[in-house]
Amino acid sequence: MAAGNAEQRFALIKENLAEFLNEEIIKKVVDEGGHPKIYWGTATTGRPHCGYLVPAIKMAQFLAAGCELTVLLADIHGFLDNLKAPLELVMHRAEFYRYTISTLLGAVGVSTEKLKIVLGSSYQKSPEYVMDVYKMASIISEHDAKKAGAEIVKQTDNAPLSGLLYPILQVLDEQYLDVDAQFGGVDQRKLFIAAKEWLPKLGYKERAHLMNPMVPGLHGGKMSSSDPDSKIDLLDSPETVAKKIKKAHAAPQVTEDNGLLAFIEYVLLPASGLRGRKEFKVERERDGLETLVYEDIEKIREDYRNDVLTPQLIKPAITRDLNALLAPIQEAFKNNKEWQEIADKAYPPPPKKEKKVKNKGTRYPGGGKPEEKALPVRTNGDAPAEATEAAPSAQ
Amino acid sequence: MAAGNAEQRFALIKENLAEFLNEEIIKKVVDEGGHPKIYWGTATTGRPHCGYLVPAIKMAQFLAAGCELTVLLADIHGFLDNLKAPLELVMHRAEFYRYTISTLLGAVGVSTEKLKIVLGSSYQKSPEYVMDVYKMASIISEHDAKKAGAEIVKQTDNAPLSGLLYPILQVLDEQYLDVDAQFGGVDQRKLFIAAKEWLPKLGYKERAHLMNPMVPGLHGGKMSSSDPDSKIDLLDSPETVAKKIKKAHAAPQVTEDNGLLAFIEYVLLPASGLRGRKEFKVERERDGLETLVYEDIEKIREDYRNDVLTPQLIKPAITRDLNALLAPIQEAFKNNKEWQEIADKAYPPPPKKEKKVKNKGTRYPGGGKPEEKALPVRTNGDAPAEATEAAPSAQ
Repeated sequence: MAAGNAEQRFALIKENLAEFLNEEIIKKVVDEGGHPKIYWGTATTGRPHCGYLVPAIKMAQFLAAGCELTVLLADIHGFLDNLKAPLELVMHRAEFYRYTISTLLGAVGVSTEKLKIVLGSSYQKSPEYVMDVYKMASIISEHDAKKAGAEIVKQTDNAPLSGLLYPILQVLDEQYLDVDAQFGGVDQRKLFIAAKEWLPKLGYKERAHLMNPMVPGLHGGKMSSSDPDSKIDLLDSPETVAKKIKKAHAAPQVTEDNGLLAFIEYVLLPASGLRGRKEFKVERERDGLETLVYEDIEKIREDYRNDVLTPQLIKPAITRDLNALLAPIQEAFKNNKEWQEIADKAYPPPPKKEKKVKNKGTRYPGGGKPEEKALPVRTNGDAPAEATEAAPSAQ
Repeated sequence: MAAGNAEQRFALIKENLAEFLNEEIIKKVVDEGGHPKIYWGTATTGRPHCGYLVPAIKMAQFLAAGCELTVLLADIHGFLDNLKAPLELVMHRAEFYRYTISTLLGAVGVSTEKLKIVLGSSYQKSPEYVMDVYKMASIISEHDAKKAGAEIVKQTDNAPLSGLLYPILQVLDEQYLDVDAQFGGVDQRKLFIAAKEWLPKLGYKERAHLMNPMVPGLHGGKMSSSDPDSKIDLLDSPETVAKKIKKAHAAPQVTEDNGLLAFIEYVLLPASGLRGRKEFKVERERDGLETLVYEDIEKIREDYRNDVLTPQLIKPAITRDLNALLAPIQEAFKNNKEWQEIADKAYPPPPKKEKKVKNKGTRYPGGGKPEEKALPVRTNGDAPAEATEAAPSAQ
């Protein structure tokens, strides 16, 4: 899908967002025929899984709408989250993320010409950046830093100091990545508000902020980090995907906090839209009924409420579409020796069973990952589920 | 005074200290005939005054005892303490401090061959240092950072975050300045304890810590920051010095918290010792009595308690010795055009009367400055008196 006129482009940028602060900043660029610069950051701690499809599809829409997209691989944060993992491992993971994200975005059919993937370490240790970190720390109060990180950073007295430092870094990244806007999950809201307030204090301009809703996980928001089935790896085989989705919990007729419906809404429908035609098909051959073809989520919800659509019916449909989405990624992986080698280095088999270390103070925990979080279920000041989830098993 | 044998050298290093943590680290180096490396840091905010003589005389003793001395001019901290002052001004001040400190140490007759003066900005923005700041922040809790800075950093919720960050920097400085020990006032004790605990967490070695007592100011510990007479500038004329000392408050017969006696004990007696003979003379010509010659503070205290020594008697003696101490500094200043130019740039006349900005989170506030603080009078979690005192008038 190519960028249309200004109105269509702006509509695509806004689609499915929960909130959009200072949208006039982006609107102006679009209206002038320019390319709004948007960044999204992720700490390269764990291994990207299907939860990443939610922000990824949104980012694919940004690209399709003619935005310049910067993906920040926050490797320093990844390293600091777990000092036991050598820096080398984190670098390999960042490399793995780079392959995965660029392939993922390419797989939904958008041009990745305007995609830039930047390592945090490439500028977060520079003298200019560091001086700004010091400066910001000297004008931001502990209280404000805490408030900014309230939903994304563990907030106890025993939490590491980095939890108060990271909000400053994340705010400065907007300046140093030279963007017009930052994109993330609504769990980043307080931090985004802080960014609006803090950057002008150093003489930098205020940015726009685009927020995805918190999307319930495929397993209905209730998922156990010890259950491997609650997480679908981007490289899982079609059979494994089918098996995991089959196990997904979804009450018939209940559309609230329904991970299956959310996945259709935030991943499958927009992905098909990017490929040219927004639709979701449900085959009912086994029941001798005609295939249902949906073009919007409202009708799907309605039919689900009325039990026309059952979990048993939509699970195979989701499996089919998700596997179709993953196929080009897996194909690219199979054909890329370097990527395979990086995967081996980035995720070596665990030496032995060890107790998982709970990550604290992870930044970029959100971005709206369906497997990780449910709205309105909050992790309530504790480390976000994702951070725990993403904890590498080899420590 | 040249370095004597190991025992004499070590005794000189220890002289007058309130506390000496891990002295075995320094003792070992001395016993092996080596040169212990010690650092002292100061934020280049205000203008060095006579309060600096207390740590300076101690540092002169270190040099005399054959130590390698590093003076850290914490210019970044100076800059951050007052973002309203342009970086340029702070750089000029650092330069002014450099001239003053090296001349001061030379003036008491010790060789400054083993003196190194380092700007904080020369390494505190380097990628290695910064990475260690990030690392330390990720393993040190907010609670521990607060505890470490309890006596030297403002501890309210509204205090800037830098107050929690600076302890980390000050601890890392021990590693990056490659020293065996850090020297400071006992107000730094909690921070020094933190340094002992924190550095090994990053695989760095534990350092020794030498602490000067908190010495009451010349004005008896009670001094007002708005009273210019409570601070003697190193470049004050002999007449001004005489006038200011004459005004100093000192109760007859009371030796506790007596700033005059403290100045003799921590500045004048050791300074004369460095020049070859430890003595303090009190002339009583006016009363037709012979001159009293003291070689230790105990006898001086005793005579003061018994009213043999009165404030009226010792004030002229202190004035004489202090002026003698300042004379070579002022002589050097007069003969150094560059230093004079730097002075003009570093301390331009205030554009107009403004309300003093209270500095918060200053590091290196102590070092035991007689004009600034009294023991046991604590600033009780607030910004140390010195930081307020040292606030530049031109903002």
